[in-house]
Amino acid sequence: MARSKEIIEKLARMGEGVLEDVEAGKNPSLDITIRSLNNVYYDEKSGLIKLGDEKQKRYYFNLAQAKKFLQTILIAKQIKALLEQDKPALSIRQLFYTLKHEIPGTGENTFDVQEESDPIIEDMELMTDSLREELNLIATPNGVLAGPMIVEDKTGDVLDFTKMGSAGGAVPPIVEDDYFHIKEMSADYILVVEKYAVWNLLNQEKYWKKNNCLLLTGKGQPARAERRLLARFGEEYKIPIYVFTDMDPWGYYIYSVYKSGSINLAFFSEKAACPRAKYLGLSVKDVMDFDIPRSSWVKLNEEDFKRMEEIAAYPWFKKERWQRELADLKKFGYKIEQDALVSKSIEFTANNYLPTKISNNDYFD
Amino acid sequence: MARSKEIIEKLARMGEGVLEDVEAGKNPSLDITIRSLNNVYYDEKSGLIKLGDEKQKRYYFNLAQAKKFLQTILIAKQIKALLEQDKPALSIRQLFYTLKHEIPGTGENTFDVQEESDPIIEDMELMTDSLREELNLIATPNGVLAGPMIVEDKTGDVLDFTKMGSAGGAVPPIVEDDYFHIKEMSADYILVVEKYAVWNLLNQEKYWKKNNCLLLTGKGQPARAERRLLARFGEEYKIPIYVFTDMDPWGYYIYSVYKSGSINLAFFSEKAACPRAKYLGLSVKDVMDFDIPRSSWVKLNEEDFKRMEEIAAYPWFKKERWQRELADLKKFGYKIEQDALVSKSIEFTANNYLPTKISNNDYFD
Repeated sequence: MARSKEIIEKLARMGEGVLEDVEAGKNPSLDITIRSLNNVYYDEKSGLIKLGDEKQKRYYFNLAQAKKFLQTILIAKQIKALLEQDKPALSIRQLFYTLKHEIPGTGENTFDVQEESDPIIEDMELMTDSLREELNLIATPNGVLAGPMIVEDKTGDVLDFTKMGSAGGAVPPIVEDDYFHIKEMSADYILVVEKYAVWNLLNQEKYWKKNNCLLLTGKGQPARAERRLLARFGEEYKIPIYVFTDMDPWGYYIYSVYKSGSINLAFFSEKAACPRAKYLGLSVKDVMDFDIPRSSWVKLNEEDFKRMEEIAAYPWFKKERWQRELADLKKFGYKIEQDALVSKSIEFTANNYLPTKISNNDYFD
Repeated sequence: MARSKEIIEKLARMGEGVLEDVEAGKNPSLDITIRSLNNVYYDEKSGLIKLGDEKQKRYYFNLAQAKKFLQTILIAKQIKALLEQDKPALSIRQLFYTLKHEIPGTGENTFDVQEESDPIIEDMELMTDSLREELNLIATPNGVLAGPMIVEDKTGDVLDFTKMGSAGGAVPPIVEDDYFHIKEMSADYILVVEKYAVWNLLNQEKYWKKNNCLLLTGKGQPARAERRLLARFGEEYKIPIYVFTDMDPWGYYIYSVYKSGSINLAFFSEKAACPRAKYLGLSVKDVMDFDIPRSSWVKLNEEDFKRMEEIAAYPWFKKERWQRELADLKKFGYKIEQDALVSKSIEFTANNYLPTKISNNDYFD
């Protein structure tokens, strides 16, 4: 059964449940999974930041919940209709606009601000056990990628990511198999690069060709599409996956989002994290191993130290190797950006740093 | 003569000038164009925000200028060397790292922070009358585009922008002719869309195919590459160019950046603005003409009113039609996002709004 048909049925069942409540004279209710921090945990076994099972009921006859109940039904109904009619994907802001209107004769709006509809869309993802993208709702993607992969797009276009010029191929907003069908993929490994400027340098040097790998960047903190794409790669191809970021707490965190998910979108981790991903650097040991010039070290500031402490306390950074790295960084007192490697030479990242690290298995979890 | 060779010669002449000063026993100096607001003006004839000719001298023997003089020479030398060696393009942060080092025996760094090197790169653009991209320095591009255009990239790849799938083709960091050579372009017009979500909706509906146009988005405020690309389109193809933004002061300003340039990058306007671009909407008149539902109107807030006043005072918004529009908006009291048109119907933008506006010549300058 097509995925959208499954979701339509789930939404229909949800509506029927409400109807049964009404017919039985009960207060209509919906089961909503709680998305507060209390219901978020790190699952060591899977390596994922997950959402727990705690649920609460959203009632119709409850002064505090009636409007939200109505809004939930409106959104479920709209998503169902849009899926049934096979409409183009919308942004969550556009979905908000399709639903925002005055309830006739009341002077009351269905929705006033998008902050009302966004969390209900997250409720929907959980109620139908689907990704927002499967509900035909998208976020703006930012990433680009290059390397030995051929994809058949939903449009019918065939995209060869070895022939995407100096821009690379753009990551589309929906990377599910029926939109972004990977026909061929012969990379030996996948390299995720935090920053566009470094990705671009590697792309110009055809790093992906010389090393037969896929080269992806999310341009800093990745958007949903890049995370989901990496998760697909992790599941579908048993090749190594490396994440190359700055040596600072922000770089570490970006790595952990790709690998384990994020707290805010814990419900998204299972489908959009890649627990097999390894941290390729930079690490404090590299500074000496590769003789990174002192002039490219940047003093850690107060905010960095604060963020390091927060990160050290996250359960997904509790592994001994990470605790040591964080302690080393604290002692070292400087951060180093991946950009800084050009101070050795412009080709250093592509010709020395990355190949050495990879061939020495010099990465960690 | 190749562009990079021209620039190399200009940089060499600059160095020779300094040497001549030294040999003549004069205080070595460089002529630097002033980039302060006082030297920025709106040139009505060309429709561009321009930088004036005011220059100042930067001296070597001047306590306040010596370091900056040295830094200027270092950057000029490095750019020349990188161009001569045909090195890959760098970001301005990476260029900073290639130059940051301790001057032996002084305990003094050439550069401490990037805020020192960035303005000197702008000096270089002016001194060599070139774009940063021609100095092989790039900014991160954000845009995507689709439509009837075939490009030969510097890599040798041939890119067909009618076959770029649901992502569209990514705008590369350098869009100069030798990097991004347009081999075929048969669009009837170019449509620039402020927001990715709206661009994406139009792309899904194959608007560019049905209307034989090029569809570009810079994802909000455009980066350098998208501005420069639109400027090239404006110069090289005599087809109409429309910019479609939100009906609010921020949308108006984005339009004006594409069309006339920006104050901060006034020296960049001549090469990266597109004075032929027309404003396609939304306009206050459209609200009635197209019966945009009241529920999608969003009250203008204090910040909006403030920004509107600023915009009304800009010389490039002094045209009668714009003053009327700004007055109308103020009176109307609501802003409308381009996303909001989905409240009419999801297909409304593609099937009604845009074709009607274009066929009625319902746009303005």
